[in-house]
Amino acid sequence: MAADDVVGVAHSLLLKATGLGDDADHMHVVSICLFVSLLCACIVLGHLLEENRWMNESITALLLGLCTGAIVLVSSKGQSSHVLKFDEELFFIYLLPPIIFNAGFQVKKKEFFRNFIAIMLFGVIGVFISFGVISTGSWYLFPKFGLPDLSIRDILAIGVIFSATDSVCTLQVLNQDETPLLYSLVFGEGVVNDATSVVLFRAVQTYNFGNFTPLEGFQIAGSFLYLFFASCFLGIASGLISAYIIKTMYFGRHSTDREIAIMLLMAYLSYILAELFYLSGILSVFFCGIIMSHYTWHNVTRNSRTTTKHSFATMSFIAETFIFLYVGMDALDLDKWKQSQSSFKESAALFGSLLGLILLGRAAFVFPLSALSNYSTKSPGAKINIRQMVIIWWAGLMRGAVSIALAFNQFTEGGDTKSSNQATLMVTTISIVLFSTIVFGTATKPLISWLLPPKYRSNLDAVGISPNVSLDPDFSIPLLMDTERDENGVIERTGIRRILNGLPHPQSISMLLTAERSKIHHIWRRFDDAYMRPVFGGRGYVRLLSRRSMSMNIPEEDEALENEVNN
Amino acid sequence: MAADDVVGVAHSLLLKATGLGDDADHMHVVSICLFVSLLCACIVLGHLLEENRWMNESITALLLGLCTGAIVLVSSKGQSSHVLKFDEELFFIYLLPPIIFNAGFQVKKKEFFRNFIAIMLFGVIGVFISFGVISTGSWYLFPKFGLPDLSIRDILAIGVIFSATDSVCTLQVLNQDETPLLYSLVFGEGVVNDATSVVLFRAVQTYNFGNFTPLEGFQIAGSFLYLFFASCFLGIASGLISAYIIKTMYFGRHSTDREIAIMLLMAYLSYILAELFYLSGILSVFFCGIIMSHYTWHNVTRNSRTTTKHSFATMSFIAETFIFLYVGMDALDLDKWKQSQSSFKESAALFGSLLGLILLGRAAFVFPLSALSNYSTKSPGAKINIRQMVIIWWAGLMRGAVSIALAFNQFTEGGDTKSSNQATLMVTTISIVLFSTIVFGTATKPLISWLLPPKYRSNLDAVGISPNVSLDPDFSIPLLMDTERDENGVIERTGIRRILNGLPHPQSISMLLTAERSKIHHIWRRFDDAYMRPVFGGRGYVRLLSRRSMSMNIPEEDEALENEVNN
Repeated sequence: MAADDVVGVAHSLLLKATGLGDDADHMHVVSICLFVSLLCACIVLGHLLEENRWMNESITALLLGLCTGAIVLVSSKGQSSHVLKFDEELFFIYLLPPIIFNAGFQVKKKEFFRNFIAIMLFGVIGVFISFGVISTGSWYLFPKFGLPDLSIRDILAIGVIFSATDSVCTLQVLNQDETPLLYSLVFGEGVVNDATSVVLFRAVQTYNFGNFTPLEGFQIAGSFLYLFFASCFLGIASGLISAYIIKTMYFGRHSTDREIAIMLLMAYLSYILAELFYLSGILSVFFCGIIMSHYTWHNVTRNSRTTTKHSFATMSFIAETFIFLYVGMDALDLDKWKQSQSSFKESAALFGSLLGLILLGRAAFVFPLSALSNYSTKSPGAKINIRQMVIIWWAGLMRGAVSIALAFNQFTEGGDTKSSNQATLMVTTISIVLFSTIVFGTATKPLISWLLPPKYRSNLDAVGISPNVSLDPDFSIPLLMDTERDENGVIERTGIRRILNGLPHPQSISMLLTAERSKIHHIWRRFDDAYMRPVFGGRGYVRLLSRRSMSMNIPEEDEALENEVNN
Repeated sequence: MAADDVVGVAHSLLLKATGLGDDADHMHVVSICLFVSLLCACIVLGHLLEENRWMNESITALLLGLCTGAIVLVSSKGQSSHVLKFDEELFFIYLLPPIIFNAGFQVKKKEFFRNFIAIMLFGVIGVFISFGVISTGSWYLFPKFGLPDLSIRDILAIGVIFSATDSVCTLQVLNQDETPLLYSLVFGEGVVNDATSVVLFRAVQTYNFGNFTPLEGFQIAGSFLYLFFASCFLGIASGLISAYIIKTMYFGRHSTDREIAIMLLMAYLSYILAELFYLSGILSVFFCGIIMSHYTWHNVTRNSRTTTKHSFATMSFIAETFIFLYVGMDALDLDKWKQSQSSFKESAALFGSLLGLILLGRAAFVFPLSALSNYSTKSPGAKINIRQMVIIWWAGLMRGAVSIALAFNQFTEGGDTKSSNQATLMVTTISIVLFSTIVFGTATKPLISWLLPPKYRSNLDAVGISPNVSLDPDFSIPLLMDTERDENGVIERTGIRRILNGLPHPQSISMLLTAERSKIHHIWRRFDDAYMRPVFGGRGYVRLLSRRSMSMNIPEEDEALENEVNN
């Protein structure tokens, strides 16, 4: 692969040198070739560095992108480091949907819904707090660092841009199996946060801030709620329609490919329909993923199940790696660096103050909202201890492609910065993204192993208990109930019967709340079994049907595969 | 799904009507949305029409595209039928590679290589003959039909454009399992034909025909040979590198997704590298597919095997459907129809004469070259009888997206026709593509069942024998040898020992030739086992290794899955 890289770069340079590459179509082929070669190199390097505790695929891709940018820059004698221009459309229309869809498809649903309130607190209220802190700080500090004449809109845009955490990088530094509570909190926050940021950004761009009234505040809140629920509804509807189509028509009878194609297309349709109606495609495709993994996935043939599970993950993986590679390559865009008239001292001050504001802005909501969440839930299972708070704070500090995409939208026209201020802000954004991803990203894994040593992690975090709570037998029943599966239905039913008969023997009020949540879960299960599954299929339902009608032979591994996805 | 379509179209019209859709970015979202909805509708309709003997997915997609075009046309009051402009890049860079790669990946390798000489005769010499017939005919006839001042280059381009058969549609009308000989001949020809057409088209566009000398003829031949072998080499090298990387690193240990990603990316790299070096990406990715199914595919984990097999097929399926949908929608482009100044009579004459030339041009090489192939092989197994010749002639009459793409390249500038002549030729090309796909396409399945009733097909065509040859026991041994597998190794070894010991008891010279081919196959197998497999892995090799080192449990179905792909 390395040989291919060299050939690709060499040829691109050769073409540039000889002027043969002027042909726009062929330049495009050259850049695709370079990107595909680099993606292959990233995968191989990522594999070789797998055991390394500091590195991960994102950072490898970023660094590889930086190196390639530097090589192109040096060999073109400082003329250009660009191979492709950053294209918002490429990012929002093609790269982001597979990542978010796969996140919804593979997320542990129970964990996610168990922490739903905390996730919404972080993802919605958190963004507003962070936005307030960063905007206020920028408004106060930036004029001192050589940016005197920023409009109120630019200041607010900066607030939004640097409040958008990077859910892609989070996926790589936190492990769903090792730290499920942290993963579901930070990642769930990331998805909701992306949506909130995009909405807030649109509000900042369209509202007239000259005469801002409290009424307009309510309007923004109202439009946010509309957006949130409409997007979720759209995603859920797409997922259910796909489940219904596949269950009714039983495609597998004729072609596995049709099933896979319809899942893929319906998922993408949920994203693009949301964008069509100016909703949040991110939220829509995320919920579509959840619904598809709950219903549609169980209606397809065994081969389709294996295929969708792995091919969605692969698409997401390629898109992620591509984004980081791209951000790395874009960082050395000399035009922007030259256009910015800030001195080194001013740039450093700007960079430092923004980094400080990001740290502060996140601290300003993680600790209070965690405390609030702890206060409101009472259940020890969902309580967040101080060590976990620090990790949540830290793991969400990375800024990524969403920040870059928003900054490009705000500070460039057709990809080019038009003024010194715009150039300075673009350069600062790119520096912050690089720094936070590389420095905060590399430090997260070691931080987690330092704050949460494995002996605490595997058992306690798995059921979501903070390490200082002792496990007594009475506690363990409702907790097991939460992680209940069809396989250990006995425990489930015993626990629920106790609760329904009013015999939970609670030791404290928190037990009742845990029971309450289990009751909601139970009601959902009954609703699901009675009304949803007969129409939309789902786990066990279709297999039973197909076994009867087609007398297919489905082996044991099937169950294992299902369990992998279906928790 | 139908509801989604309606919403998509309605919204697009609403946007157009209200002027909200003027925003270029959002128009793009609208068109993606429409296409994704239509793709879903095609899949569902294709499924419902599965049992219909006249229809197939291509024709469904074409008709659906036509209907959508008509709806958009009517509702925009004749203003526009375009949702997306035909984009050569989209076609050649993104849609064609997955189709051809999948064809190589799923092709029955033995069948393909057994008919290699016939395929090359059809795919290379055939194109030149057809090109000659159509060019000469056009040069003689077109001036009479209102196209007096065509340049020699345009005439020759027309010859190439209408010599390119549509391998995509062929895949859908011929069945690999029912008529393997015909499938491998017609499809193999299609792939080679695509490559030949593209090369010939480039030659037509770049050579100076003012002073054409025989030397230049040799140059074209030389550049074709270079192109052919360099492209094959590139494809084979990419495939082998991917096999080597996966075998050496054993990705599956860490992540299935990495294996799938590297296969996907290396396959695409073979295509795009070929394009980078101005070679034939089609040939390159086809051979990469063959190599990957022989080596790489056997080196990956079981889940990756299932996933790649189905996801490559799905990608190809989506790309095919998209192309037909697109061609259908593009057909009603009123601008071109208006710009063409030909009268109805002239247009009809042009259309009719071109159709006649296509029929004639194909007949001019299928029948003589089949006879030549029959004369040269002598073996009854590879002989093509007259009924099969008719089917080969007929199934290759369809003209498809390659013709359209080449015509766009020749007769438009940035997607728009500039003169009446150009518009007339574009309109004629689109009409021919639509007519041939719909009329010839629908008639192929019935034609096959009429000419080759199932009682002949299943046994006789499976071993490639023309129905009038009787099966006597002595014949059956070498024929079984051709279809030999590891499973029935006894027959294989007996047969080969007989031949190697000079005891084949041949009844005729044809037996010796069959033995000859088996010997080549045997030499290849020994070379493969001795030198290739130890380095690049492959069937059985890695499984043995992994069984020993990882003590993995690989069940029986694995074999079944392997057999499906590995013949």
